[in-house]
Amino acid sequence: MLYLIGLGLADERDITVKGLEIVKKAERVYLEAYTAILLVDKEQLESYYGRPIIIADREMVESASDDILAGADTADIAFLVVGDPFSATTHTDLLLRCRTSTPPIPTRAIPNASILTAVGATGLQLYAFGQTVSMVFFTDNWKPSSYYDRIRENASLGLHTLLLLDIKVREPSLEALARGRRRTHDMEREFIREFAVDRDVFDRVWKRDYEGK
Amino acid sequence: MLYLIGLGLADERDITVKGLEIVKKAERVYLEAYTAILLVDKEQLESYYGRPIIIADREMVESASDDILAGADTADIAFLVVGDPFSATTHTDLLLRCRTSTPPIPTRAIPNASILTAVGATGLQLYAFGQTVSMVFFTDNWKPSSYYDRIRENASLGLHTLLLLDIKVREPSLEALARGRRRTHDMEREFIREFAVDRDVFDRVWKRDYEGK
Repeated sequence: MLYLIGLGLADERDITVKGLEIVKKAERVYLEAYTAILLVDKEQLESYYGRPIIIADREMVESASDDILAGADTADIAFLVVGDPFSATTHTDLLLRCRTSTPPIPTRAIPNASILTAVGATGLQLYAFGQTVSMVFFTDNWKPSSYYDRIRENASLGLHTLLLLDIKVREPSLEALARGRRRTHDMEREFIREFAVDRDVFDRVWKRDYEGK
Repeated sequence: MLYLIGLGLADERDITVKGLEIVKKAERVYLEAYTAILLVDKEQLESYYGRPIIIADREMVESASDDILAGADTADIAFLVVGDPFSATTHTDLLLRCRTSTPPIPTRAIPNASILTAVGATGLQLYAFGQTVSMVFFTDNWKPSSYYDRIRENASLGLHTLLLLDIKVREPSLEALARGRRRTHDMEREFIREFAVDRDVFDRVWKRDYEGK
């Protein structure tokens, strides 16, 4: 059985009791650590859960998923996901691989809190949110602006927008990918410092459409 | 401290480790049991948590919140909510009462899974959902149709809709309220059997707007 287990949002004690029981008994425990990050490090999780944890980066999940799933038709494998397993990156590829493998690997998800609902702590009613929007890092040559249209659609219905900002955690650089050197990772980048929103563009279109200037 | 603790969606082991630790130490433990229901009963929760649980119905939360908050400026009170404390009924009144009481009562929320994110288990991407819509019981004299407009707004943007269906759990009947007999509750009603959607109306407007018939 492959268990996708949500860890919640802050630290090692945000896992559910049900999730923790599975982690303690699983044959191997992986931590998906490239689409979201907990506020505690791997060692603190290992110490509290009493289990060694294998970090699953994007490269492993996309290219070496056979290693993750090895033996999962008979043994229990725990795949830990920050937040809720179905809320952001849903690892559909991994689930489909389980379903189509011979013999098929059963799967089960253990839900948990997600930023998609925890944003309710602001006092804004979740019923008044429209579609959730992601905003990726801009590069010199790629500044996608579709996030703006999505926010505008929500605003036109009087709805709030939860805007998820991109993170970069040990991903291979475009140059490294182009050279086929997938093992060369960028250094981890600090979230706020590196987030290259083009404020001028945003301010201009917002003022034009909403403030009539 | 008043703790609003999410229980998750299915049974007594969907509480987080952090939530369970608070429940075990709290002076009193309440369970909000009128806007959502767990799949296990109160006795099973009490047995697993090792604590007596006081059922908080709508009447208690709205009219007797002083009893719930008594002593909460110095002792810890746990208020259990099915799902996530900020996702549906957010008990804003209770939180505001804590803030304005003398002395103020500190509050803290322990997030958990919600149907708003667990719906991702269907395979539909949560990014492709628009605003969440509620649909209340129809009565002979009140058949609100605004839920239809909300679904149409989402559909016009190509977005899915999570439609939450009303439940009735030991609420006073309108007749009982009118007679001032708030203690006379309706019998619990079975969810599916009683849900009085006017399918004819829905089908007619849907066909007209989406199928051009």
